[in-house]
Amino acid sequence: MNIEDLPTPALVIDLATVERNLQRMASYVAKHHLALRPHTKTHKSLRMARLQLQAGAIGLTVAKAGEAEVMAEAAEDLLVAYPALDPARSKRLAKLAKSRTLRVAVDSAFAVDALASAARAAGVILGLLVEMDVGFHRTGVHSPREALKLAEHIDQSESVRLDGLLCFPGQINDPPAKQQQTLQPIAELLSQTLQLWKKQGLEAKIVSGGSTPTALQSHLIAALTEIRPGTYLYNDLNSVKVGACSLDDCAARILCTVVSNAVSGKVVLDAGSKTLTSDRAVDDPLHGGFGHVVEYPEAKIVRLSEEHGEVDIRWCEHRPQLGQRVHVIPNHICPCVNLQDSAWLAMADGSLEALPIDARGRLS
Amino acid sequence: MNIEDLPTPALVIDLATVERNLQRMASYVAKHHLALRPHTKTHKSLRMARLQLQAGAIGLTVAKAGEAEVMAEAAEDLLVAYPALDPARSKRLAKLAKSRTLRVAVDSAFAVDALASAARAAGVILGLLVEMDVGFHRTGVHSPREALKLAEHIDQSESVRLDGLLCFPGQINDPPAKQQQTLQPIAELLSQTLQLWKKQGLEAKIVSGGSTPTALQSHLIAALTEIRPGTYLYNDLNSVKVGACSLDDCAARILCTVVSNAVSGKVVLDAGSKTLTSDRAVDDPLHGGFGHVVEYPEAKIVRLSEEHGEVDIRWCEHRPQLGQRVHVIPNHICPCVNLQDSAWLAMADGSLEALPIDARGRLS
Repeated sequence: MNIEDLPTPALVIDLATVERNLQRMASYVAKHHLALRPHTKTHKSLRMARLQLQAGAIGLTVAKAGEAEVMAEAAEDLLVAYPALDPARSKRLAKLAKSRTLRVAVDSAFAVDALASAARAAGVILGLLVEMDVGFHRTGVHSPREALKLAEHIDQSESVRLDGLLCFPGQINDPPAKQQQTLQPIAELLSQTLQLWKKQGLEAKIVSGGSTPTALQSHLIAALTEIRPGTYLYNDLNSVKVGACSLDDCAARILCTVVSNAVSGKVVLDAGSKTLTSDRAVDDPLHGGFGHVVEYPEAKIVRLSEEHGEVDIRWCEHRPQLGQRVHVIPNHICPCVNLQDSAWLAMADGSLEALPIDARGRLS
Repeated sequence: MNIEDLPTPALVIDLATVERNLQRMASYVAKHHLALRPHTKTHKSLRMARLQLQAGAIGLTVAKAGEAEVMAEAAEDLLVAYPALDPARSKRLAKLAKSRTLRVAVDSAFAVDALASAARAAGVILGLLVEMDVGFHRTGVHSPREALKLAEHIDQSESVRLDGLLCFPGQINDPPAKQQQTLQPIAELLSQTLQLWKKQGLEAKIVSGGSTPTALQSHLIAALTEIRPGTYLYNDLNSVKVGACSLDDCAARILCTVVSNAVSGKVVLDAGSKTLTSDRAVDDPLHGGFGHVVEYPEAKIVRLSEEHGEVDIRWCEHRPQLGQRVHVIPNHICPCVNLQDSAWLAMADGSLEALPIDARGRLS
């Protein structure tokens, strides 16, 4: 398949950029003696997961049980960074734990009991990490004391094993250079928690941090033993906007065709919310647009319908022509990948290889 | 499969509500002597398409060539309400036209030429509709004179046939009772255009209108011969908010599980932007939330991550419990359907049947 013949909209991944992104993260974790357990939600691809493992990742992170089942083909060691507390999910994870090292993050005694019960029924041991809220206020226990209580509950339960602590600093979108101050309270919170555990004889073999924006400043949180960035592999416009990378580091682009220029000052691309998603720009959710048009940096994707991307071209020196193809770097690459059955991997020699999105749509 | 055993998040469609929605639209178009050519983007399902045809639809509407290829299994008559002007799409559509009545909406001479060229190569005739912008400013020529120019171009081209006019009043989100005033200028614009055509001996066999919010007021635009609503089949929270239906008319719900309550004042559902999409509330894009929790009407889905739906429950009399299942009516159902490989159809007797989303992911 030549790029000229690709039906659009098509998700095209540049392998050389992926390899550079892999290398940057590998160098960082090596320098700071951190382990890397990348979140596979971004690529949902076995091939990409294997590249991450070859580049030194110690295992893979997933959110849902269905993703764990797919990624078990690539890795011996899986972390479910998600409170999988219903009978269906905990049973599926316990089954996987028969052949894989499987860990789950929890933030309730209810989840511990559900997972312990499934593990007991399957005759396995599940490793559990206590999730701590470090400011994103989504999931996670809110204090060192609560974390201790949950750790003790795990320690006293059968069929589960206390493996450590997990956090997600999703609220931090400062540029890396400014993160020292914002990461300081997190470092203190984790450290206090671990001291409390230690006093009670509880050990955290793993202390897991996450998120691409903070990944390269993880050494500022001394307690961390590993990190779980996902987006760093492909990057996206929001990664650029928070200062985590440059446009050149964005490995994933949507190849689109200009299908209309009938409305004055606009062209329409054949990529709408069913391709680019309605995810907003971090810096300006209402008016920040829906992606960066590589060939027309002055253009702005101002509105999406399901299959239409409306582009304001009034500030463009040259106007995109009907039938012309352009590349869009989306605001948020992870949900865009999840809309494609298959992407195209652009190789160094210019050829394209189909890249199946193996875990696409694994929602449960 | 019992509903208690469904892995979550699951898309559940209530057949009785679907049938009521089908019936309401069928009665309306019968009363006003309009034809119905429903847009299948909402359900992407052959089974639903067949129900629409059985309820009197004269054919089906699609956006992309891939959707047309799928829906050709259910219908003899297809309208591509999308400017399919690139070589790949026009070739696929011309191929389909060998066995189906196929029409395409166009808003440029470029599109006419591309489709005529593909039709000629395939030895078929493609029916074309001139798309007119009636205020949404997305696609469509902007004046009766431009519409005439394009109609003449079609009329003078080989392998294509001028079949009429098409418009999409996507800007109109007034409640039906208030639409008389907003639809008036559209009625005049279409009427002027058709008069111009008539003077030049050009006929519009089809005058096609669209959109669920305006569907039941289509008789106010005298020129229309048919309408193309899509969302009316399932409805969603945004349909309710614009007054097009009530909550009871929402046939599609996402069954979710409460997976966390660790953060004060919140619970977390296992449905995030990869299930509910980031599509916003029409009435309040920044703060309108991401869906209606049926069992907790005072709850508000305040933030989505990819797999987390954070629900503010501070105003709820009773608190959702860990592991509990709740139903969510999403803001916009169409892109949610496109995220599922298969939905579940809830039958009158309470049983569930798998409902494949046949055209899911057909983006090109």
